[in-house]
Amino acid sequence: TSMSLTNATVHLKCLQEAIGEARKSLDEGGIPIGCVLVHSVEGIVGRGHNQRIQLGSVIHHAEMNCLENVGRKPASFYRDCTLYTTLSPCAMCSGAVLLYGIPVVVIGENKTFQGDEQHLKNNGVALEHMKSKECEDMMKRFIETNPQLWYEDIGQVDNKEKRTQSRT
Amino acid sequence: TSMSLTNATVHLKCLQEAIGEARKSLDEGGIPIGCVLVHSVEGIVGRGHNQRIQLGSVIHHAEMNCLENVGRKPASFYRDCTLYTTLSPCAMCSGAVLLYGIPVVVIGENKTFQGDEQHLKNNGVALEHMKSKECEDMMKRFIETNPQLWYEDIGQVDNKEKRTQSRT
Ligand SMILES: [Ca+2]
Ligand SMILES: [Ca+2]
Ligand SMILES: [Zn+2]
Ligand SMILES: [Zn+2]
Repeated sequence: TSMSLTNATVHLKCLQEAIGEARKSLDEGGIPIGCVLVHSVEGIVGRGHNQRIQLGSVIHHAEMNCLENVGRKPASFYRDCTLYTTLSPCAMCSGAVLLYGIPVVVIGENKTFQGDEQHLKNNGVALEHMKSKECEDMMKRFIETNPQLWYEDIGQVDNKEKRTQSRT
Repeated sequence: TSMSLTNATVHLKCLQEAIGEARKSLDEGGIPIGCVLVHSVEGIVGRGHNQRIQLGSVIHHAEMNCLENVGRKPASFYRDCTLYTTLSPCAMCSGAVLLYGIPVVVIGENKTFQGDEQHLKNNGVALEHMKSKECEDMMKRFIETNPQLWYEDIGQVDNKEKRTQSRT
Protein backbone atom coordinates (compact mmCIF):
# COMPACT_ATOMS: atom_id res chain seq x y z
CA THR A 1 0.00 0.00 0.00
CA SER A 2 1.14 3.55 -0.67
CA MET A 3 0.64 6.51 1.67
CA SER A 4 -0.14 10.08 0.76
CA LEU A 5 2.39 12.58 2.14
CA THR A 6 -0.15 13.71 4.73
CA ASN A 7 -0.81 10.17 5.88
CA ALA A 8 2.92 9.51 6.04
CA THR A 9 3.46 12.52 8.30
CA VAL A 10 0.56 11.59 10.56
CA HIS A 11 1.80 7.99 10.70
CA LEU A 12 5.32 9.07 11.72
CA LYS A 13 3.99 11.39 14.43
CA CYS A 14 1.59 8.82 15.86
CA LEU A 15 4.18 6.05 15.72
CA GLN A 16 6.47 8.36 17.70
CA GLU A 17 3.77 8.50 20.39
CA ALA A 18 3.61 4.70 20.43
CA ILE A 19 7.42 4.60 20.75
CA GLY A 20 7.11 6.98 23.71
CA GLU A 21 4.80 4.43 25.34
CA ALA A 22 7.32 1.65 24.65
CA ARG A 23 10.08 3.72 26.29
CA LYS A 24 7.85 4.36 29.29
CA SER A 25 7.45 0.60 29.66
CA LEU A 26 11.22 0.13 29.42
CA ASP A 27 11.74 2.74 32.16
CA GLU A 28 9.32 0.76 34.35
CA GLY A 29 11.36 -2.41 33.78
CA GLY A 30 8.82 -3.75 31.29
CA ILE A 31 8.73 -5.04 27.74
CA PRO A 32 9.24 -2.10 25.35
CA ILE A 33 6.15 -2.31 23.17
CA GLY A 34 3.82 0.67 22.89
CA CYS A 35 0.58 1.56 21.20
CA VAL A 36 -1.81 4.45 20.56
CA LEU A 37 -5.33 4.47 19.13
CA VAL A 38 -6.11 7.44 16.90
CA HIS A 39 -9.63 8.49 15.92
CA SER A 40 -9.97 10.36 12.62
CA VAL A 41 -11.74 13.30 14.27
CA GLU A 42 -10.85 13.07 17.97
CA GLY A 43 -7.14 12.33 17.47
CA ILE A 44 -5.30 10.18 20.03
CA VAL A 45 -8.00 8.60 22.19
CA GLY A 46 -5.84 6.18 24.16
CA ARG A 47 -2.33 4.98 24.90
CA GLY A 48 -0.90 1.79 26.26
CA HIS A 49 2.14 -0.37 26.73
CA ASN A 50 2.92 -3.96 27.53
CA GLN A 51 2.22 -4.66 31.23
CA ARG A 52 3.35 -8.27 31.64
CA ILE A 53 6.01 -7.32 34.18
CA GLN A 54 4.36 -4.25 35.69
CA LEU A 55 0.92 -5.80 36.34
CA GLY A 56 1.87 -9.48 36.12
CA SER A 57 -0.58 -9.56 33.24
CA VAL A 58 -0.90 -12.09 30.44
CA ILE A 59 -3.52 -10.06 28.52
CA HIS A 60 -2.17 -6.50 28.76
CA HIS A 61 -0.08 -6.50 25.63
CA ALA A 62 0.47 -2.93 24.41
CA GLU A 63 -2.50 -3.04 22.03
CA MET A 64 -4.87 -4.57 24.60
CA ASN A 65 -3.72 -2.14 27.29
CA CYS A 66 -4.34 0.74 24.87
CA LEU A 67 -7.86 -0.49 23.99
CA GLU A 68 -8.64 -0.93 27.69
CA ASN A 69 -7.43 2.60 28.41
CA VAL A 70 -9.67 3.94 25.63
CA GLY A 71 -12.59 2.36 27.48
CA ARG A 72 -16.05 1.26 26.38
CA LYS A 73 -17.10 2.69 23.02
CA PRO A 74 -19.90 1.91 20.60
CA ALA A 75 -18.90 -0.36 17.72
CA SER A 76 -19.13 2.49 15.18
CA PHE A 77 -16.37 4.41 17.02
CA TYR A 78 -13.67 1.86 16.15
CA ARG A 79 -14.53 2.02 12.42
CA ASP A 80 -12.96 5.51 12.34
CA CYS A 81 -9.80 4.53 14.21
CA THR A 82 -6.22 3.61 13.33
CA LEU A 83 -4.13 1.51 15.71
CA TYR A 84 -0.41 2.34 15.94
CA THR A 85 1.81 -0.30 17.47
CA THR A 86 5.60 -0.47 17.68
CA LEU A 87 5.62 -4.22 16.89
CA SER A 88 3.62 -6.49 14.60
CA PRO A 89 0.52 -7.52 16.59
CA CYS A 90 0.36 -11.09 17.92
CA ALA A 91 -2.60 -13.44 17.36
CA MET A 92 -4.45 -12.09 20.45
CA CYS A 93 -4.00 -8.41 19.59
CA SER A 94 -4.81 -9.09 15.93
CA GLY A 95 -7.99 -10.78 17.12
CA ALA A 96 -8.90 -7.70 19.17
CA VAL A 97 -8.45 -5.54 16.05
CA LEU A 98 -10.86 -7.86 14.20
CA LEU A 99 -13.36 -8.04 17.07
CA TYR A 100 -13.71 -4.26 17.17
CA GLY A 101 -13.43 -3.78 13.42
CA ILE A 102 -10.46 -1.37 13.46
CA PRO A 103 -9.79 -0.88 9.74
CA VAL A 104 -6.12 0.24 9.72
CA VAL A 105 -3.05 -0.90 11.71
CA VAL A 106 0.28 0.92 11.44
CA ILE A 107 3.18 -1.30 12.49
CA GLY A 108 6.55 0.02 13.71
CA GLU A 109 8.42 -3.14 12.71
CA ASN A 110 7.88 -6.82 12.07
CA LYS A 111 11.49 -8.05 11.90
CA THR A 112 11.68 -9.01 15.58
CA PHE A 113 8.33 -10.78 15.46
CA GLN A 114 5.63 -11.17 12.90
CA GLY A 115 2.20 -11.65 14.40
CA ASP A 116 -0.99 -12.67 12.64
CA GLU A 117 -0.67 -10.14 9.79
CA GLN A 118 -2.03 -12.60 7.24
CA HIS A 119 -5.23 -13.09 9.24
CA LEU A 120 -5.68 -9.32 9.49
CA LYS A 121 -5.19 -8.90 5.74
CA ASN A 122 -7.52 -11.82 4.96
CA ASN A 123 -10.20 -10.01 6.94
CA GLY A 124 -9.78 -6.70 5.15
CA VAL A 125 -7.58 -4.79 7.62
CA ALA A 126 -5.11 -2.42 5.92
CA LEU A 127 -1.56 -2.67 7.28
CA GLU A 128 1.13 0.01 6.97
CA HIS A 129 4.70 -1.03 7.71
CA MET A 130 6.91 1.77 8.98
CA LYS A 131 10.10 -0.35 9.11
CA SER A 132 11.32 1.65 12.11
CA LYS A 133 14.95 1.01 13.06
CA GLU A 134 14.22 2.67 16.43
CA CYS A 135 11.51 0.09 17.24
CA GLU A 136 13.71 -2.73 16.06
CA ASP A 137 16.76 -1.69 18.11
CA MET A 138 14.67 -1.26 21.24
CA MET A 139 13.30 -4.82 20.98
CA LYS A 140 16.66 -6.28 19.96
CA ARG A 141 18.36 -4.89 23.07
CA PHE A 142 15.52 -6.02 25.32
CA ILE A 143 15.42 -9.58 23.99
CA GLU A 144 19.23 -9.97 24.23
CA THR A 145 19.04 -9.11 27.93
CA ASN A 146 15.69 -10.81 28.74
CA PRO A 147 15.11 -13.71 26.36
CA GLN A 148 12.86 -15.67 28.76
CA LEU A 149 10.53 -12.74 29.44
CA TRP A 150 10.16 -12.23 25.73
CA TYR A 151 9.39 -15.87 24.96
CA GLU A 152 6.85 -15.95 27.77
CA ASP A 153 5.12 -12.89 26.29
CA ILE A 154 4.69 -14.55 22.91
CA GLY A 155 3.76 -17.93 24.43
CA GLN A 156 6.80 -19.63 23.00
CA VAL A 157 8.87 -22.19 24.92
CA ASP A 158 12.20 -20.95 23.51
CA ASN A 159 13.77 -19.57 20.35
CA LYS A 160 13.81 -23.02 18.77
CA GLU A 161 10.10 -23.81 19.04
CA LYS A 162 8.32 -23.75 15.69
CA ARG A 163 4.80 -22.31 15.87
CA THR A 164 2.68 -21.70 12.83
CA GLN A 165 0.62 -18.86 14.19
CA SER A 166 3.27 -16.69 15.76
CA ARG A 167 5.80 -16.55 12.93
CA THR A 168 5.14 -16.80 9.23
CA THR B 1 -14.35 -35.29 16.74
CA SER B 2 -15.53 -38.02 19.09
CA MET B 3 -14.98 -38.08 22.82
CA SER B 4 -14.21 -41.03 25.05
CA LEU B 5 -16.71 -41.52 27.86
CA THR B 6 -14.19 -40.21 30.36
CA ASN B 7 -13.55 -37.09 28.33
CA ALA B 8 -17.26 -36.54 27.94
CA THR B 9 -17.80 -36.71 31.70
CA VAL B 10 -14.90 -34.36 32.39
CA HIS B 11 -16.14 -31.99 29.71
CA LEU B 12 -19.64 -31.88 31.20
CA LYS B 13 -18.30 -31.24 34.70
CA CYS B 14 -15.91 -28.51 33.61
CA LEU B 15 -18.51 -26.87 31.38
CA GLN B 16 -20.79 -26.78 34.42
CA GLU B 17 -18.07 -24.81 36.24
CA ALA B 18 -17.92 -22.37 33.32
CA ILE B 19 -21.72 -22.05 33.46
CA GLY B 20 -21.40 -21.26 37.18
CA GLU B 21 -19.09 -18.39 36.23
CA ALA B 22 -21.61 -17.16 33.63
CA ARG B 23 -24.36 -17.20 36.28
CA LYS B 24 -22.10 -15.27 38.66
CA SER B 25 -21.72 -12.61 35.98
CA LEU B 26 -25.50 -12.49 35.48
CA ASP B 27 -25.98 -12.01 39.24
CA GLU B 28 -23.55 -9.08 39.08
CA GLY B 29 -25.59 -7.50 36.27
CA GLY B 30 -23.06 -8.58 33.67
CA ILE B 31 -23.00 -10.51 30.42
CA PRO B 32 -23.53 -14.25 31.19
CA ILE B 33 -20.43 -15.81 29.63
CA GLY B 34 -18.10 -17.90 31.75
CA CYS B 35 -14.87 -19.79 31.36
CA VAL B 36 -12.49 -22.12 33.19
CA LEU B 37 -8.97 -23.24 32.29
CA VAL B 38 -8.19 -26.85 33.17
CA HIS B 39 -4.66 -28.28 33.36
CA SER B 40 -4.35 -32.01 32.72
CA VAL B 41 -2.54 -32.58 36.03
CA GLU B 42 -3.44 -29.59 38.20
CA GLY B 43 -7.16 -29.49 37.33
CA ILE B 44 -8.99 -26.16 37.28
CA VAL B 45 -6.28 -23.48 37.42
CA GLY B 46 -8.44 -20.42 36.79
CA ARG B 47 -11.94 -19.09 36.31
CA GLY B 48 -13.38 -16.00 34.74
CA HIS B 49 -16.43 -14.28 33.36
CA ASN B 50 -17.20 -11.39 31.09
CA GLN B 51 -16.49 -8.08 32.87
CA ARG B 52 -17.62 -5.47 30.35
CA ILE B 53 -20.27 -4.11 32.70
CA GLN B 54 -18.60 -4.89 36.02
CA LEU B 55 -15.15 -3.41 35.21
CA GLY B 56 -16.12 -1.24 32.24
CA SER B 57 -13.67 -3.42 30.37
CA VAL B 58 -13.38 -3.99 26.62
CA ILE B 59 -10.77 -6.77 26.97
CA HIS B 60 -12.11 -8.82 29.88
CA HIS B 61 -14.22 -11.26 27.92
CA ALA B 62 -14.76 -14.45 29.90
CA GLU B 63 -11.79 -16.24 28.31
CA MET B 64 -9.42 -13.28 28.75
CA ASN B 65 -10.56 -12.74 32.33
CA CYS B 66 -9.94 -16.42 33.01
CA LEU B 67 -6.43 -16.34 31.50
CA GLU B 68 -5.65 -13.18 33.49
CA ASN B 69 -6.84 -14.87 36.70
CA VAL B 70 -4.60 -17.87 35.97
CA GLY B 71 -1.68 -15.46 35.91
CA ARG B 72 1.78 -15.61 34.36
CA LYS B 73 2.80 -19.11 33.32
CA PRO B 74 5.62 -20.49 31.18
CA ALA B 75 4.58 -21.28 27.60
CA SER B 76 4.81 -25.03 28.20
CA PHE B 77 2.06 -24.83 30.87
CA TYR B 78 -0.64 -23.90 28.37
CA ARG B 79 0.19 -26.89 26.14
CA ASP B 80 -1.36 -29.15 28.80
CA CYS B 81 -4.52 -27.09 29.21
CA THR B 82 -8.10 -27.18 27.94
CA LEU B 83 -10.19 -24.02 27.83
CA TYR B 84 -13.90 -24.35 28.63
CA THR B 85 -16.13 -21.50 27.58
CA THR B 86 -19.92 -21.22 27.57
CA LEU B 87 -19.95 -19.45 24.17
CA SER B 88 -17.96 -19.81 20.96
CA PRO B 89 -14.85 -17.61 21.41
CA CYS B 90 -14.70 -14.32 19.48
CA ALA B 91 -11.75 -13.28 17.31
CA MET B 92 -9.88 -11.75 20.29
CA CYS B 93 -10.32 -14.73 22.60
CA SER B 94 -9.52 -17.15 19.76
CA GLY B 95 -6.34 -15.14 19.19
CA ALA B 96 -5.41 -15.51 22.87
CA VAL B 97 -5.87 -19.30 22.57
CA LEU B 98 -3.49 -19.26 19.59
CA LEU B 99 -0.98 -16.94 21.27
CA TYR B 100 -0.63 -19.24 24.26
CA GLY B 101 -0.91 -22.45 22.27
CA ILE B 102 -3.88 -23.94 24.15
CA PRO B 103 -4.56 -27.13 22.18
CA VAL B 104 -8.23 -27.84 23.06
CA VAL B 105 -11.27 -25.58 23.45
CA VAL B 106 -14.60 -26.94 24.69
CA ILE B 107 -17.52 -24.72 23.64
CA GLY B 108 -20.89 -24.60 25.43
CA GLU B 109 -22.77 -23.39 22.38
CA ASN B 110 -22.23 -21.54 19.12
CA LYS B 111 -25.81 -20.88 18.06
CA THR B 112 -26.01 -17.43 19.66
CA PHE B 113 -22.67 -16.40 18.21
CA GLN B 114 -19.98 -18.15 16.27
CA GLY B 115 -16.52 -16.69 16.84
CA ASP B 116 -13.37 -17.42 14.91
CA GLU B 117 -13.69 -21.22 15.08
CA GLN B 118 -12.36 -21.65 11.55
CA HIS B 119 -9.15 -19.79 12.43
CA LEU B 120 -8.69 -21.99 15.50
CA LYS B 121 -9.19 -25.15 13.46
CA ASN B 122 -6.87 -23.90 10.70
CA ASN B 123 -4.18 -23.52 13.35
CA GLY B 124 -4.60 -27.01 14.79
CA VAL B 125 -6.78 -26.29 17.82
CA ALA B 126 -9.24 -29.10 18.60
CA LEU B 127 -12.80 -27.90 19.25
CA GLU B 128 -15.48 -29.81 21.15
CA HIS B 129 -19.07 -28.59 20.82
CA MET B 130 -21.27 -29.37 23.81
CA LYS B 131 -24.45 -27.91 22.28
CA SER B 132 -25.67 -26.86 25.72
CA LYS B 133 -29.29 -25.72 25.83
CA GLU B 134 -28.55 -24.16 29.23
CA CYS B 135 -25.84 -21.91 27.75
CA GLU B 136 -28.05 -21.02 24.82
CA ASP B 137 -31.08 -20.10 26.94
CA MET B 138 -28.97 -17.94 29.25
CA MET B 139 -27.63 -15.89 26.33
CA LYS B 140 -30.97 -15.73 24.57
CA ARG B 141 -32.67 -14.24 27.61
CA PHE B 142 -29.81 -11.77 28.15
CA ILE B 143 -29.73 -10.54 24.55
CA GLU B 144 -33.51 -10.12 24.41
CA THR B 145 -33.33 -7.78 27.40
CA ASN B 146 -29.99 -6.09 26.60
CA PRO B 147 -29.41 -6.11 22.84
CA GLN B 148 -27.16 -3.00 22.82
CA LEU B 149 -24.81 -4.34 25.51
CA TRP B 150 -24.44 -7.52 23.56
CA TYR B 151 -23.69 -5.84 20.24
CA GLU B 152 -21.13 -3.60 21.96
CA ASP B 153 -19.43 -6.68 23.41
CA ILE B 154 -19.00 -8.25 19.97
CA GLY B 155 -18.05 -4.94 18.32
CA GLN B 156 -21.10 -4.97 16.11
CA VAL B 157 -23.18 -1.88 15.33
CA ASP B 158 -26.49 -3.75 15.40
CA ASN B 159 -28.10 -7.05 14.48
CA LYS B 160 -28.14 -6.11 10.80
CA GLU B 161 -24.43 -5.42 10.37
CA LYS B 162 -22.65 -8.06 8.30
CA ARG B 163 -19.15 -8.85 9.53
CA THR B 164 -17.02 -11.58 8.06
CA GLN B 165 -15.02 -12.40 11.14
CA SER B 166 -17.68 -12.60 13.81
CA ARG B 167 -20.18 -14.83 12.09
CA THR B 168 -19.49 -17.52 9.55
CA1 LIG C 1 2.79 -6.14 23.38
CA1 LIG D 1 -17.08 -13.19 26.74
ZN1 LIG E 1 -0.25 -9.03 21.43
ZN1 LIG F 1 -14.07 -12.91 23.29
